[in-house]
Amino acid sequence: MDKLEKYRQLIKNILTEHAQIATTTDQVKAELIFDTEHDHYQLNYVGWQGDKRIFGPVMHFDIEDGKIWIQYNGTEEEIATHLVEMGVPPADIVIGFHSPFKRQFTRYAIV
Amino acid sequence: MDKLEKYRQLIKNILTEHAQIATTTDQVKAELIFDTEHDHYQLNYVGWQGDKRIFGPVMHFDIEDGKIWIQYNGTEEEIATHLVEMGVPPADIVIGFHSPFKRQFTRYAIV
Repeated sequence: MDKLEKYRQLIKNILTEHAQIATTTDQVKAELIFDTEHDHYQLNYVGWQGDKRIFGPVMHFDIEDGKIWIQYNGTEEEIATHLVEMGVPPADIVIGFHSPFKRQFTRYAIV
Repeated sequence: MDKLEKYRQLIKNILTEHAQIATTTDQVKAELIFDTEHDHYQLNYVGWQGDKRIFGPVMHFDIEDGKIWIQYNGTEEEIATHLVEMGVPPADIVIGFHSPFKRQFTRYAIV
């Protein structure tokens, strides 16, 4: 499998796993959003909890220039570590929610 | 064009127009996320404005059971009205961010 296809599959697996363990009800759904053309991937919650509106991404990844950008992670899972364990080199991972300045002090890519 | 294809195209057009008028910079991008398999559609901003993190959906649509769900609208545009003007019957539009109770008092669908 070529690198990009592998990265896409890894990301889809992570999001799908989280969607499955998510507490969903008739009123709140976990939406898997996979755009393989623009390479944007998101897990999003949508619905109502009683009279409270629920809407918001839980995790969001992009793939750009062959690198995985972790743009948002609302879970306790250390996704970058998880990706490395699954064979992604740290140089192919960008922690988008860390400032570019901060990124230089990590083992991951800056851009 | 069949109804679903037409609805998909309308939604993509609305999001694409908004992405184009969006103020983006090298640091902040407007992401179009089109998942035509699960029928989730989103415009999302991602990046950094100086040392401030920018991340969040601006508009989000779903198509479910032949109806367009407006799940989130962070713009001033009255999207439901706009959809009706483009030929979508109000009975095929659900304002997801209105509570199910409130929806019965509008011209749009409840579910």
